[in-house]
Amino acid sequence: GAQAIIGGFGGEVDLEAAGWKGGPILVSGIDGVGTKLLIAQKMNKHDTVGQDCVAMNVNDLLCNGARSIFFLDYIGCSKLNLEMAASFVEGVAEGCRLSGCALVGGETAEMPGLYDGEDYDAAGTATGMRSKDQALPRMQEMAEGDIVLGIASDGVHSNGFSLVRKIVARSGVEYTDPAPWDSSRSVGESLLTPTRIYVKSIWSVHEHGRLLLGLAHITGGGLSENIVRMIPEELAAEVDVKTWEMPAVFKWLKKEGNVTSEEMARAFNTGLGMVAVVKAENADLVISKLETAGEKVYKVGKLVKRDGEGCVLKNLSSWI
Amino acid sequence: GAQAIIGGFGGEVDLEAAGWKGGPILVSGIDGVGTKLLIAQKMNKHDTVGQDCVAMNVNDLLCNGARSIFFLDYIGCSKLNLEMAASFVEGVAEGCRLSGCALVGGETAEMPGLYDGEDYDAAGTATGMRSKDQALPRMQEMAEGDIVLGIASDGVHSNGFSLVRKIVARSGVEYTDPAPWDSSRSVGESLLTPTRIYVKSIWSVHEHGRLLLGLAHITGGGLSENIVRMIPEELAAEVDVKTWEMPAVFKWLKKEGNVTSEEMARAFNTGLGMVAVVKAENADLVISKLETAGEKVYKVGKLVKRDGEGCVLKNLSSWI
Repeated sequence: GAQAIIGGFGGEVDLEAAGWKGGPILVSGIDGVGTKLLIAQKMNKHDTVGQDCVAMNVNDLLCNGARSIFFLDYIGCSKLNLEMAASFVEGVAEGCRLSGCALVGGETAEMPGLYDGEDYDAAGTATGMRSKDQALPRMQEMAEGDIVLGIASDGVHSNGFSLVRKIVARSGVEYTDPAPWDSSRSVGESLLTPTRIYVKSIWSVHEHGRLLLGLAHITGGGLSENIVRMIPEELAAEVDVKTWEMPAVFKWLKKEGNVTSEEMARAFNTGLGMVAVVKAENADLVISKLETAGEKVYKVGKLVKRDGEGCVLKNLSSWI
Repeated sequence: GAQAIIGGFGGEVDLEAAGWKGGPILVSGIDGVGTKLLIAQKMNKHDTVGQDCVAMNVNDLLCNGARSIFFLDYIGCSKLNLEMAASFVEGVAEGCRLSGCALVGGETAEMPGLYDGEDYDAAGTATGMRSKDQALPRMQEMAEGDIVLGIASDGVHSNGFSLVRKIVARSGVEYTDPAPWDSSRSVGESLLTPTRIYVKSIWSVHEHGRLLLGLAHITGGGLSENIVRMIPEELAAEVDVKTWEMPAVFKWLKKEGNVTSEEMARAFNTGLGMVAVVKAENADLVISKLETAGEKVYKVGKLVKRDGEGCVLKNLSSWI
């Protein structure tokens, strides 16, 4: 009744095969927040990483065509700091509200001897539901000329933070200093911007239509490694990085860290949190629906015949 | 469409209320292995804690009347030790096999700066399914005179390990020494005995019948605090601890640690991993079905009118 999708964005269970006649497909994933937690720790600000914990999971499930219906979180720590935990769970609850899913449980494990001081780890799991014909990606329907859309991110999201922390440390700025890329907020506050949750906007396009052929959540591996997960072997996504402006935080990270454009495209979302493939004739309709639902959307490229890499990034030298 | 059951053994989602007509109830939980991991670390033996990770979750869901259908695991570490992770996941797979559920995904998060050396934390999440009329507990059907059954555990399972580690440290025995309570195995090997998985045996009783009125998974809080979670306010479980023999490992822990009987009953399962409430006229049938499925079962007490505590343990002084 179940199979893990190797290389996919979530594991599937067919409730019908599991014995419930007429049941839906369930899709489930588990993910943590990663070393962004260490910045939350430094800033003693824990609500936004709670939202990250939800976002990383519910955005992944969208790529399978599923809408998240419930979520559970896990916190491992030495001794529970109630204020920290309350703040974290507040962010989890906000993430669940933004994605329209229910927070049905959680566990806080106190493990002195494993965690030091105020350190904690956090992970979460979301389970979504879809009908059989809502499955994504629909690789067999993809063809040369299909349009690649990019949906704007809200900053760094939850990946690449080991590199971010290295660059910040080397630059000499403090997390409490005004951000060189946004003087209205501190470095820490800006970096802690929560991962954008795309559930409601994407579901408004996907629920009843057959408009989306594929979705990629741009997490670790960036555009370079995530887009290829949803397209067939014979096709490549040709993406022109001049079609959107790389946000200021990434320009600062690139310059301060002396990061190559290629590395930027593997470590960070570089401004696009979600990428979609649609038929050319549907592109404007999808953009209009997504923008009505509050997203900023760019036509960033198209599918071409594959000749080598599955994701070809054009004009990378424009990232300076 | 969903509600968290405060004090219950898992969170519920009604798929019908979530928009899938005729859908089942899903029940989901998340739990870690706790400080038993530190003994796995000391013994460099990681397969059995993988099974624990599954067991803690799937046994919990049984108490809601649900059979687990899928599982995901999370490992947080500094740098992935492939041998360790492979061994852990082997145990997870064995746990999934024993409980008849599918391992549909997992995440390994490398977080240097949060975890030291070879340390890791592990958690897992199981989701189960049931029909509306399979819900447990059925408190409104419980009455004075109903029988309390105890199902044997396989050692300490996965709770109370902070106390276990303190007692072992104070006793002066090494984890590699022969266990004073079982000379055929070392202290570490014996303590790492995996948590028993009750899914198949209990499902053989519960799937088609209305024989079980309630189930309690005996985890942290022991008999004292877990049995009360499934019985109504006006009733108490009166359990005679002389009706089964407390296993040798617990006798050793009690003596070496100078642990009171009351504390034993709150910290450990003391020999019973699962407790059930059944009608007196069904007790022998349930015992026979469970024993046919491989369990050792004891009649340990009955429900009485509550007058103070919800779980009254008789003959505690016999635990010496």
